[in-house]
Amino acid sequence: MTAYLDAYRGRRLLVTGGLGFIGSNLARRLVDLGAHVSIVDALIPDHGGNRFNIAGFEDRITLHVVDVRDSATMKRLVEGQDVVFNLAGQVSHIDSMTDPQTDLEINCRSQLTLLEACRAVNPGVKVVYAGTRQIYGRPDRLPVDESHLVRPTDINGINKAAGEYYHLVYNNVYGIRACSLRLTNVYGPRQLIRHSRQGFIGWFIRLAVEGREIQVFGDGSQIRDFVYVDDAVDAFLRAGATAACDGGVFNVGGAEPIAHTDLVDKLIAAAGQGSKVFVPWPDEKRRIDIGSFYSDYTRLTQATGWSPVVSLDEGFRRTLEYYRKNFAEYVHDVRGAAVR
Amino acid sequence: MTAYLDAYRGRRLLVTGGLGFIGSNLARRLVDLGAHVSIVDALIPDHGGNRFNIAGFEDRITLHVVDVRDSATMKRLVEGQDVVFNLAGQVSHIDSMTDPQTDLEINCRSQLTLLEACRAVNPGVKVVYAGTRQIYGRPDRLPVDESHLVRPTDINGINKAAGEYYHLVYNNVYGIRACSLRLTNVYGPRQLIRHSRQGFIGWFIRLAVEGREIQVFGDGSQIRDFVYVDDAVDAFLRAGATAACDGGVFNVGGAEPIAHTDLVDKLIAAAGQGSKVFVPWPDEKRRIDIGSFYSDYTRLTQATGWSPVVSLDEGFRRTLEYYRKNFAEYVHDVRGAAVR
Repeated sequence: MTAYLDAYRGRRLLVTGGLGFIGSNLARRLVDLGAHVSIVDALIPDHGGNRFNIAGFEDRITLHVVDVRDSATMKRLVEGQDVVFNLAGQVSHIDSMTDPQTDLEINCRSQLTLLEACRAVNPGVKVVYAGTRQIYGRPDRLPVDESHLVRPTDINGINKAAGEYYHLVYNNVYGIRACSLRLTNVYGPRQLIRHSRQGFIGWFIRLAVEGREIQVFGDGSQIRDFVYVDDAVDAFLRAGATAACDGGVFNVGGAEPIAHTDLVDKLIAAAGQGSKVFVPWPDEKRRIDIGSFYSDYTRLTQATGWSPVVSLDEGFRRTLEYYRKNFAEYVHDVRGAAVR
Repeated sequence: MTAYLDAYRGRRLLVTGGLGFIGSNLARRLVDLGAHVSIVDALIPDHGGNRFNIAGFEDRITLHVVDVRDSATMKRLVEGQDVVFNLAGQVSHIDSMTDPQTDLEINCRSQLTLLEACRAVNPGVKVVYAGTRQIYGRPDRLPVDESHLVRPTDINGINKAAGEYYHLVYNNVYGIRACSLRLTNVYGPRQLIRHSRQGFIGWFIRLAVEGREIQVFGDGSQIRDFVYVDDAVDAFLRAGATAACDGGVFNVGGAEPIAHTDLVDKLIAAAGQGSKVFVPWPDEKRRIDIGSFYSDYTRLTQATGWSPVVSLDEGFRRTLEYYRKNFAEYVHDVRGAAVR
């Protein structure tokens, strides 16, 4: 059952976006599994990269703070790696609408740079790409499986879809083994909680830690699914060690789809503080919202045995404990000033 | 029945890629319909732009030879236009694989620049985007309608898909009326025939005009559909004048799906010369080929009344006549040297 974990012992692995939320949790886990881990992260302000995310692992992770768009650098970093876990990206839907060209640079150009580097110096490498359920847009049916149309509702979703397609083309045309995990909302320790532009779940958790009021848009009836970060990391580990995943796309979904309003109740109960208030949808959010969404992850279960194991209650408990202990490391912006 | 044609009289229209194959045929038609037509074209070598394509119309078309990626220029050109027919792009699948970053620049960045210009200075404009059936990749079923998954097999297909999605997002989020025509193989006068990297049909026509041998890959059993350029232009005219198209994607397909080998026979018969030879698939083409493809264009027929009216026999007759008369204008490269 855990053969896929043993597969990483002594292997050379690169995690792009490795100072970010999921990337850092993955990198730490890989170190614990006995792998030689390198991280590349551009530490672009506001993107989620945080040096504190690898606290305690600094001596066992090789960190490269460089721009993933630099071709020569990427060739050097990709060379000799067994697996690249490719999590670098811009994840704010709102930012992608106000500055679509920068989103294109990071989510498209840098992916091509990485894949071209693999093709040039390490065509035998395996690449696992962090995709997103955002590319489905507003779903035609629930739950959403991988046969659902890709129909993004914002620039970020479009560019993330292109990034995923690039990986599949390099798999099919050049034989660079690659697959994509279409992640639903992921939450847990080491997520950016400084601002609300990278999704609501991290922001809600911050408000709960502070005992503040949590705003629910509309009547809060829209449903979402959530994956605790350790479960997301487990999906990357399984996909990275499973040849049957090569060339495929796989939903990584949550086990307990839940309405926003119920989610907030659950979070407030877990925190023992905070309050809930209903407010009208802000225009710029309403226009790119997708209604209810939760995904069918049967395909990944069948290919790798993966399923989420951490409940929302348990996940919230661990997450709140982490941020209560390390709050100061996550509420300051890059210039050191507190942001509220 | 022809109200959509009257709709263009006296209107201000911009055609991007207007010196190219479909763009120039469209621009000429719009002039004949009494419109004020501006063209923007970067005249990038090898992309299909050809000043001869507007021969005889130079005094009735305002030509801007500029790069569509330049933001300030695009704002100036978009201002005051009623409709933008957006046909600028890189169309070579092969070139997109050897230089993916340039394909990204032209097919993604420039689309964002255009749409951002519309948003900034002319949000009331309507935009008709030249999409491609290439984004479907290898089809699951035939004929392919618009509910088929988007699953491109090469970088060009991915970036063209992203370009299309951008238009839909700007329609849905910003109210910039936009739609996409997913064109199948288009042929006819004013197509690039200098080299074979922009698809086989133009190249086959050139070989027929020269009485040369035409190579068919494999057994030539793969099926394609073809649209004569006047029919493609008619699709743009109808979409540009039909509010029901806004926010939609529409296949523009051919009426007579035909196997490659039969297509070549038909072309040779129409030309009264040339010969056919079967050769093995070249590796770099086989890897991005999609097998048989033809599309279902019912959706466009229902929305606009469009259907193709020019038969392959008639289309070949007109096309061969055009190139026989104007051959020298199409077989020289940009430096003036003949290319074979």
